[in-house]
Amino acid sequence: MKSVKVGICGLGTVGGGTFNVLQRNADEIFRRCGRRIEVVQIAARSINPKCDTGSIEIIDDALALARNPDIDLVVELIGGDGIAKEVVLTAIEHGKHVVTANKALIAVHGNEIFARASEKGVSVGYEAAVAGGIPVIKAIREGLAGNRINWLAGIINGTGNFILTEMREKGRAFDDVLKEAQALGYAEADPTFDVEGIDAAHKLTILASIAFGIPLQFDKAYTEGITQLTTEDVNYAEALGYRIKHLGVARRTAEGIELRVHPTLIPAARLIANVNGVMNAVMVNGDAVGSTLYYGAGAGMEPTASAVVADLVDIARTLETASNQRVAPLAFQTDALSDEPVLPIAQCETAYYLRIQAKDHPGVLAQVASILSERGINIESIMQKEAEGQDGLIPIILLTHRVQEARMLDAIAALEALESVITPVVRIRVEQLD
Amino acid sequence: MKSVKVGICGLGTVGGGTFNVLQRNADEIFRRCGRRIEVVQIAARSINPKCDTGSIEIIDDALALARNPDIDLVVELIGGDGIAKEVVLTAIEHGKHVVTANKALIAVHGNEIFARASEKGVSVGYEAAVAGGIPVIKAIREGLAGNRINWLAGIINGTGNFILTEMREKGRAFDDVLKEAQALGYAEADPTFDVEGIDAAHKLTILASIAFGIPLQFDKAYTEGITQLTTEDVNYAEALGYRIKHLGVARRTAEGIELRVHPTLIPAARLIANVNGVMNAVMVNGDAVGSTLYYGAGAGMEPTASAVVADLVDIARTLETASNQRVAPLAFQTDALSDEPVLPIAQCETAYYLRIQAKDHPGVLAQVASILSERGINIESIMQKEAEGQDGLIPIILLTHRVQEARMLDAIAALEALESVITPVVRIRVEQLD
Repeated sequence: MKSVKVGICGLGTVGGGTFNVLQRNADEIFRRCGRRIEVVQIAARSINPKCDTGSIEIIDDALALARNPDIDLVVELIGGDGIAKEVVLTAIEHGKHVVTANKALIAVHGNEIFARASEKGVSVGYEAAVAGGIPVIKAIREGLAGNRINWLAGIINGTGNFILTEMREKGRAFDDVLKEAQALGYAEADPTFDVEGIDAAHKLTILASIAFGIPLQFDKAYTEGITQLTTEDVNYAEALGYRIKHLGVARRTAEGIELRVHPTLIPAARLIANVNGVMNAVMVNGDAVGSTLYYGAGAGMEPTASAVVADLVDIARTLETASNQRVAPLAFQTDALSDEPVLPIAQCETAYYLRIQAKDHPGVLAQVASILSERGINIESIMQKEAEGQDGLIPIILLTHRVQEARMLDAIAALEALESVITPVVRIRVEQLD
Repeated sequence: MKSVKVGICGLGTVGGGTFNVLQRNADEIFRRCGRRIEVVQIAARSINPKCDTGSIEIIDDALALARNPDIDLVVELIGGDGIAKEVVLTAIEHGKHVVTANKALIAVHGNEIFARASEKGVSVGYEAAVAGGIPVIKAIREGLAGNRINWLAGIINGTGNFILTEMREKGRAFDDVLKEAQALGYAEADPTFDVEGIDAAHKLTILASIAFGIPLQFDKAYTEGITQLTTEDVNYAEALGYRIKHLGVARRTAEGIELRVHPTLIPAARLIANVNGVMNAVMVNGDAVGSTLYYGAGAGMEPTASAVVADLVDIARTLETASNQRVAPLAFQTDALSDEPVLPIAQCETAYYLRIQAKDHPGVLAQVASILSERGINIESIMQKEAEGQDGLIPIILLTHRVQEARMLDAIAALEALESVITPVVRIRVEQLD
C-alpha cells in the first residue's frame, strides 16, 4: 500500500517529539497499519538539534506546506491562536487531513474547523489536545460509544496538579511552589493559562462536547484558578478525609450541562485523588459502564507525540481500506506478527519477596545472606521479626533486587536445605511498575 | 443510512445487558454513528425477564442465527468453549461480522478465528473479553499505536482482587473471603478459573498479543494462583510499603516475551496498588507515552455490555463509510449535536467546603447553622478548631450537602454580614465522584 505523505508544521517540543517517534518506531507503526507514514516536508523557523531530519525538506512557510500537493496530511504543531488556524483551514481547503495538538484552537475555533472538514470529507485528529498521551478522546468517542455519559471530571493541567501536590505533601505555599515549577520548566514565565484554569477549560470544553454531543462552547465554561488556595485549607481538607484538586467537571443535569473548572475537594480514597505531580487523569461516568479512569502523562515531548502519532495511524488505517478490517484483529497486520518467543517462567526476571521461617540460632542470617550472594542475588532490604507462632520459628523477610527465576529457585532450594530452615520458603514476586 | 442488523446469541447476564443498553441508548448511539443498530433475532434457551424483547424473534438454535441471511453482525455471548466457537466460525463463513465477550475463545482459538475473518474480510470485535467495560483493547490497538510497548500489567480478575482487598483491609483469611465472594455472586461455585489465574491468563494472552504483535499463545502463559497467600505475608508486605495484587504481567525483554500471572508485591504508592474490590485496572508502558493506566468495572451486566456495544458502534462506523470521517469530529454526527444549554455557574450544584473565621463568642455556631438551614442547606459535618493565628479568630470548617451555587452565594453573603465574621468566607466546591 502506498505511504501516507505527511507535512509537519512546527518543530519545537511536540513537533520534534512527533518527528522522532515517527522515525524511531517506523517499523512498529508499519507493522500496525500496513503502510508507511512518511514525513516529506517540515515547516519550521529553525531546526531542532534533537531531530535528525536528514534529507527532508525544511521550509519556513507553513502555509506553503499546507498547500503542497504532494502532502496527504498536515500536522499542525505550531500552537497558539496565531497562524495555526490559517494553516489548518488552508490544509482542509486543499483536501488534506489534519492532526493537531492545539487545544485553544479546537476549543475556540473547532466548530468552524470541523464544518469545513466535513464539507471537504477530511479528518481532523486532536487526541493530543487533551491530556497529552492519554487516549481519552478515543476512549470517549469510541470506547464508551454505547453509553449515555453522565459526567466526567479530570485533572487536566499538570502544572496545577504539581503545585497542589507540593502544597499538600510538603506544606509549601502556592507562590513558593509556583516559582519552583517555573524553574523546572513545568510552568511558563506567565503562568496565567495554567494556574487560572484557562488551559484546563480549553480541554474540558472539548471533552464535554464529545461526551454529550454539544457544540464547542468555550465561552460558557466557568473558570476559577488555584492562586487563592492556602495550606490551611489543604490541611483542613485532609483532616476531613479529602484532597484538593484543580478539577475540570462536566455534568449532564435535567436543566443543562455544567461546565466548570475550579479547586475541588475529593474523597482521599478515590483513585483520582491519588494522582500526583504533573500527571493527568480523567474520570468518565457512563450509564452502562459506571465510572472509568484514564491516567498518564498530560504533557511533554514524547507523551504528546504519542497522541499525535496515534491520530496519524488512525487516519492511515481508514484511508483507502479495501476490507472492513480497519484495524488488524491483533493490532498488527497478520503477516507482520512476530515470532519472538514467549519465555518460560524460569527465564523471567523479577525482584522477590522471601519469607524464611528459621530456628533461632546465631548463624542463620549469615547463611541466608551468603546463599543469596553466591548466586549474585542482591538484597534490597531485610527484616527479622520476633518469633510469632508457638513453633518458636523466626520469620526473616527479604526483598531482593531483580534476578532470573531459575537462579532464585536454586537459591530457595539451598535455603530450604539449611538445617535451621524446616518449612518451605514463601516467595512472592515484586514489580516496581515504574 | 440503512441500519446494521444484529443477531444476539445468548441472553444471560451479558446478553441481557447488551440488549438493554442497545434499546435504552438507541438514540444516543444513532446520534454517534449515524445509523441504527437493530436487533433482529435472538438465540436463547430461555427468555430473560430483565429484557423487554417485544416482537423480536427468539429462536433456540444459535447456528441458525449465525447463518441467517438477514443478519449483518452476530454477537456471541454464549461464552465458554462449547458451541461458541462453531457459532463464531459459522457467522464468519457466512460473511458476517462478529462481536464476542468470550476471552477463553479468543485466547485459545483466536488465531484460527482471525485467519478465517481476514479471508472473509469481516471484523471480529472482542473489547468485552478483557477488563469488561474498560476500553483497553482500543487503547492499546489504537490509542497507543505510535508506541513500542515495553510492558503491561493488569488487575484483570475482579474476584481475585476482591479477595485480596478483603484480606488486606480486614485481616481475613483467604478461604473465609472466598466463601463470602461466592455468596455475593462475585465468585463461581467452582472458583478455579478466578483464583488460580486461568481467567486472568486468558486476558493477559490477548493483551500481550496486541501490545507486542505476537500470535495468541495461551499455552505458554505461566499461571500461579492466590490460594496459598496468607495474611502474614499480606501484612509483612504492607510493613515494607507494598501491597499484594494478583497481577498479569507481559514484558518485552531482549530474549523474548514474559507472560505471567502471579501474586505480586507492588509499591503502595502506585495508583494500581490502590485499585480495590472487584475493580480492574491495566497499566500500559510505551516508549513514547511512558506509563498509562485504564481503570473501571471489569465485569458485570452493563459494564461488559458497554464494551460489546462499543464494538458494534465501531463496526457500524466502518461499514460503507462514504467519507474518510469514520468517526464524527465531535463524536456525534454534526447534524445530531444538541442545543442543551451550558449552565451558568450560579445554576450548578455541588457540595461545599466552607471555612469561616469568627470571633470567639458563644452564639456564632448557632448563627451559622441557622443561616444555612434557612436556605435549605444541609450540613454534612462541622469542625471547630482552636484559634490558630494571633488574631484570635476561630476557624469553623463545614462540609455541606449538594446545593445550587446561587443559594450558597446568598448564604455566604449572610455569613459575611455577621458581626463576628470579619474576614471573607473561604469556599471550595466538593465532588464525591462516586
